[in-house]
Amino acid sequence: MEAVTTFLEQCRTDVDAILAHRLTAPESGSPRLLDAMSYSVLGGGKRIRPALCKAAAMAVGQSGEAALVPGCAIELIHAYSLIHDDLPAMDNDELRRGRPTTHIAFDEATAILAGDALQTLAFDWLADAPGLTDHTRLAMVRELAKGSGHLGMVRGQAIDLESVGKQLSIENLESMHRHKTGALIVAAVKIGALTAPDLRPGQIEDLTSYARTLGLAFQVQDDLLDIEGDTQVIGKPQGSDQARGKPTYPSLMGVEQAREYLAGLLKNALGSLESFGNEANVLRAMADYVVARTY
Amino acid sequence: MEAVTTFLEQCRTDVDAILAHRLTAPESGSPRLLDAMSYSVLGGGKRIRPALCKAAAMAVGQSGEAALVPGCAIELIHAYSLIHDDLPAMDNDELRRGRPTTHIAFDEATAILAGDALQTLAFDWLADAPGLTDHTRLAMVRELAKGSGHLGMVRGQAIDLESVGKQLSIENLESMHRHKTGALIVAAVKIGALTAPDLRPGQIEDLTSYARTLGLAFQVQDDLLDIEGDTQVIGKPQGSDQARGKPTYPSLMGVEQAREYLAGLLKNALGSLESFGNEANVLRAMADYVVARTY
Repeated sequence: MEAVTTFLEQCRTDVDAILAHRLTAPESGSPRLLDAMSYSVLGGGKRIRPALCKAAAMAVGQSGEAALVPGCAIELIHAYSLIHDDLPAMDNDELRRGRPTTHIAFDEATAILAGDALQTLAFDWLADAPGLTDHTRLAMVRELAKGSGHLGMVRGQAIDLESVGKQLSIENLESMHRHKTGALIVAAVKIGALTAPDLRPGQIEDLTSYARTLGLAFQVQDDLLDIEGDTQVIGKPQGSDQARGKPTYPSLMGVEQAREYLAGLLKNALGSLESFGNEANVLRAMADYVVARTY
Repeated sequence: MEAVTTFLEQCRTDVDAILAHRLTAPESGSPRLLDAMSYSVLGGGKRIRPALCKAAAMAVGQSGEAALVPGCAIELIHAYSLIHDDLPAMDNDELRRGRPTTHIAFDEATAILAGDALQTLAFDWLADAPGLTDHTRLAMVRELAKGSGHLGMVRGQAIDLESVGKQLSIENLESMHRHKTGALIVAAVKIGALTAPDLRPGQIEDLTSYARTLGLAFQVQDDLLDIEGDTQVIGKPQGSDQARGKPTYPSLMGVEQAREYLAGLLKNALGSLESFGNEANVLRAMADYVVARTY
């Protein structure tokens, strides 16, 4: 556990440095728009997706250096989705990571535009990611588009919208999460693996399976934290999902069963990595970390 | 003029067919989200950007076939920008092309998500555009990202937001339009030219200059139509920019001078194409068309 914390810490430092450097470069333009973009992206965050991207690159024998900028691009997508998700017409959240959400700190129109521009910028960064061939960059653009679009992340948000206040089955809840958070986590892992010039047959499938399972585990743990966590630590009012009538794993299956389900997901995620050697140890440790995290 | 109308008509038919086919393919997903995406994209429109994309491909000796899907991708970006621009927090428009805007026909949250997903889909389509090499596709992704992001189209929207109710200079108005509509028009022309395997030195620069000038001309004519046009024909209430206190060319320089300015822009746009032969005749005719159009 200690090793993965060090890895995550190092990764976060590297990612934050790249993001800060690229998002605060002096340029002419609309300062307010750029301020809103920086505010949203640089406002903390665990940088789990870039870390998974790098760890997946390491799992296929790479140093992970070439996965850093692509990981940052994925983080831009994540940041844009949070800005739009927090808008009054969506979740209407005023607090995120312990700070005012973007439309509160700026205004609604600027928040919409900042989200839009961050999405564009993600593809821009991928298209010029250093140390990769054009072929690889394009493959990454494809993965990111599939993972974040109307068949991936945005579809999950649409399902989420439709589900508020409704009685959801576990299957529907799972489908929502597979898209809403899972698809981008899968994209992060696949994009990391794409930094390798060659992959063994089956490796992408195993990594995809790992990422799918991990994405769900991440969500189950999130739901458990919403019930059991501390507002100060999780950065949003504890119980806010419950209060809003959002279906969660604990609300549908009970806390104890949700914990058991989470343990099963962890086992399956690790099982997907069976064909990998020690080079996948960081990915393994990250699965443990996701399940054990307290924020 | 008749030839360009036929070209535009044919191009619109081709583009509408591709858009309809790709946006209504049966698939599992969120039907409401996909409905909102289709509604926004398939609700008419002159398809000027795809036509410019194809005409630019023809100007560099191509048939223009390979520019159709990239042109449709650009149209997705245009459609997403209109959806978000119409939102209550932005322009708060209820009517677009004579129909209810997306957030009126659906709801605000769905409109935000439909716009988000259309942007993603544009990059998805470019990354798999038929008949092109990966190298070319990636170059197109770069152009589209630059043209539509925080240094291009979205920057223009941010300048627009900040300018409402303010006294703008002609220079500032021009900067707004160069970004808000001009950057995507430039991207359309450059992306069309990229379908050629080789370009003569200076061709991209000449085409860029043509597109920049045409983009401005398009906007000046739009402003003139807002004053002189017929609501039925232009699809939005006549005088709506004026009523909202938005700065326009006629309001800043007077109607007569705006008309003269427009004529000068047309001349310059045509001048940029001097080094091109007959293969650029469609581009030339489109410049004439943009200036003469009545809607």
